[in-house]
Amino acid sequence: MNDNSILASIITIGDELLIGQTIDTNSAWIATELNKVGIHVKRRVAVGDVWDDIWQTLEEEGEQAPIVLITGGLGPTSDDITKPLLCQFFEGELIVDKQALENVKNIFEKLLNRPLLERNLKQAEVPSTCQVIQNKRGTAPGMWFEKHGTIYISMPGVPHEMKGMMMDYVIPAFKRQFNLVPIQHRTLLTAGIGESFLADLLIQFEENLPSSIKLAYLPNYGMVRLRLSCQNPLVSIEELNNMFANLKELVKDYLVIDEDLSLQETIARILIQQKKTLAIAESCTGGYISHLITAIPGSSAFFKGGIISYANEAKIDTLDVPEDIIAQFGAVSLETVEKMAEGIRLKMKTDFALATSGIMGPGGGTDTKPVGFVCIAFSSEFKTESTTLQFRFDRQRNIELTAAHSLNFLRKKVG
Amino acid sequence: MNDNSILASIITIGDELLIGQTIDTNSAWIATELNKVGIHVKRRVAVGDVWDDIWQTLEEEGEQAPIVLITGGLGPTSDDITKPLLCQFFEGELIVDKQALENVKNIFEKLLNRPLLERNLKQAEVPSTCQVIQNKRGTAPGMWFEKHGTIYISMPGVPHEMKGMMMDYVIPAFKRQFNLVPIQHRTLLTAGIGESFLADLLIQFEENLPSSIKLAYLPNYGMVRLRLSCQNPLVSIEELNNMFANLKELVKDYLVIDEDLSLQETIARILIQQKKTLAIAESCTGGYISHLITAIPGSSAFFKGGIISYANEAKIDTLDVPEDIIAQFGAVSLETVEKMAEGIRLKMKTDFALATSGIMGPGGGTDTKPVGFVCIAFSSEFKTESTTLQFRFDRQRNIELTAAHSLNFLRKKVG
Repeated sequence: MNDNSILASIITIGDELLIGQTIDTNSAWIATELNKVGIHVKRRVAVGDVWDDIWQTLEEEGEQAPIVLITGGLGPTSDDITKPLLCQFFEGELIVDKQALENVKNIFEKLLNRPLLERNLKQAEVPSTCQVIQNKRGTAPGMWFEKHGTIYISMPGVPHEMKGMMMDYVIPAFKRQFNLVPIQHRTLLTAGIGESFLADLLIQFEENLPSSIKLAYLPNYGMVRLRLSCQNPLVSIEELNNMFANLKELVKDYLVIDEDLSLQETIARILIQQKKTLAIAESCTGGYISHLITAIPGSSAFFKGGIISYANEAKIDTLDVPEDIIAQFGAVSLETVEKMAEGIRLKMKTDFALATSGIMGPGGGTDTKPVGFVCIAFSSEFKTESTTLQFRFDRQRNIELTAAHSLNFLRKKVG
Repeated sequence: MNDNSILASIITIGDELLIGQTIDTNSAWIATELNKVGIHVKRRVAVGDVWDDIWQTLEEEGEQAPIVLITGGLGPTSDDITKPLLCQFFEGELIVDKQALENVKNIFEKLLNRPLLERNLKQAEVPSTCQVIQNKRGTAPGMWFEKHGTIYISMPGVPHEMKGMMMDYVIPAFKRQFNLVPIQHRTLLTAGIGESFLADLLIQFEENLPSSIKLAYLPNYGMVRLRLSCQNPLVSIEELNNMFANLKELVKDYLVIDEDLSLQETIARILIQQKKTLAIAESCTGGYISHLITAIPGSSAFFKGGIISYANEAKIDTLDVPEDIIAQFGAVSLETVEKMAEGIRLKMKTDFALATSGIMGPGGGTDTKPVGFVCIAFSSEFKTESTTLQFRFDRQRNIELTAAHSLNFLRKKVG
């Protein structure tokens, strides 16, 4: 990043990461949280449950950064070799930690109401050369080591256990131990313009950026997030804010929101502010848009419900789409999707409604309505409007692209 | 893995991977596909758009494995420095590749109907020392280099572009170039038993496993997948199958399915086989279970639809839950969730129905119904049954755990 950054390296351990079984979400979360307090992740390395590979990676990453965060490999099964390895690497011997033992016993006897197994007792063992980080959410304790001026922290791979240790213990300790300069971010979200066109629009702006302020392009499903970052205490907040104001002005035709919010969070904020309610009728997206909305805490303040009318019969029976509309225009048509939007709005008695119908693939395409063809509609008391979209690619991507474009369509209508 | 494996290392490039903006799904996909053809991923490394870091990582990973796969850093914006770096690392000069240029022109003029920008033309430039891998799904070509006996392949970070290149070109080329011994996998899915209890059940089994067969525990949301792997041509398929039969017998009380299928795919198969139909009423899961079902290609054969009755009003109006049931027992109660299941089954005219209602957090908990308290119900023509669940933790995790447990409840009723 720049000279004021404390650097960190993340090591994730486990065969499941190398055979494609598990997608590593821990690293992204850790990076986000470290960034907030001014620690920059330089590298992330994933290795399997292989003694030599873990050993070599510990040595290499210790040379890369003063902080090495390790997750995974601490489970109770025999393929988890990380703890004995750490014990040898940091030249200790395995001893039982009393507090960790109490914790393991508590979890098994009180919470799980199950007998304590020998292998679970082993989870309370730690190398004598570490400081123990207690685990309030599981059985495996965390471990804090120091060697040749580098801090090594080993945590379980279970996301909520790792997150708890980071928030309760690790990050507060970093704040005490290092003279951290927080990284300032200013983020905005654009829609309707590709990365290269944005970059062309911003040539001049990028050339005039002081070297201590960095611009990042973060594209995702038809949207591009732009982020200004600065970690130099000599750059004033005002200067960063001015740069951000310039950036906003340059992209104003494509601006969704000038904060680090998702499209659905933006919509949530608008609807809560306007005291308006929303319902969603989904055919091709099969509940995914409603899921995105209801994943937001507090969404019940504006979201009343949805209907997933997957079968034509469901469109007729539960959304009152006239049978002859479907017969005449097809289930994937502007006419049908408008009726779906109106139907769900009346059923759920909401101010606004959104509806989707399309062909996600791999099957179901025709010459006139190929895979990736989608109709979406918005309905309010005053108007019902619809549009078509055409994607390519695979089912999963079509579902996600339809959701993103539908939410942006909704935002433009209510914003 | 073992002596018959060809090893690979994966490098992912991009600041977005180190600030937590992007979760790396490419690596898991690549690892899965390589595994299928007998190539084992030894390490995965993520680095930012930083010249020295990328350079060092290329050198290090080239020493780790004969194959180095690189994704990302090839975009059209100025923070993407990978191509000039590769050009220097592999001692070439940038030249325009005619076929790649045709492709870029085609995409802009025909597909996007947009003017071609100077920076897009640059996407057709490649180092003179590489073999070009054409990109049928985007503008950035892939590049195949060889240096000191190691193959380095650079691909775009956009998932469907990278996947296309891997399937069309890279994996077929590996099959021709290497004498690959496919890795044999046998996978089963268990539910209702924790990893450490499973491990205890399998102590003897693990001790008797020949060294060329490996057992992996892959836990995920209350379920544990068990996988036997073997890449030794001296171990017969019969021997592996016998071991797998033993394993199945040992875990039979917890067995969901003896194939590498998800819970929802297992349910899909059962319902299609039985020619039965399903509908889902979701309150707390907000569409997530329906999304999991409809993400399966061909799910329209058995899934007729769902209702997301987020507001109480929606439960009454669209699912015919009697108002006094909600008033007397609450929206989160066995009584209400049973009425929801019956309501959706009758509305959607299906054989089976599933319903969920619960408190996902962070708000909404009470003393008797705390955050994580969930009621689920199954309904068929012959019976309606319900049960309660209690989770802890955060909203996202509660939604995912409720979905997994509800699907398993459904599977047991229909299986």
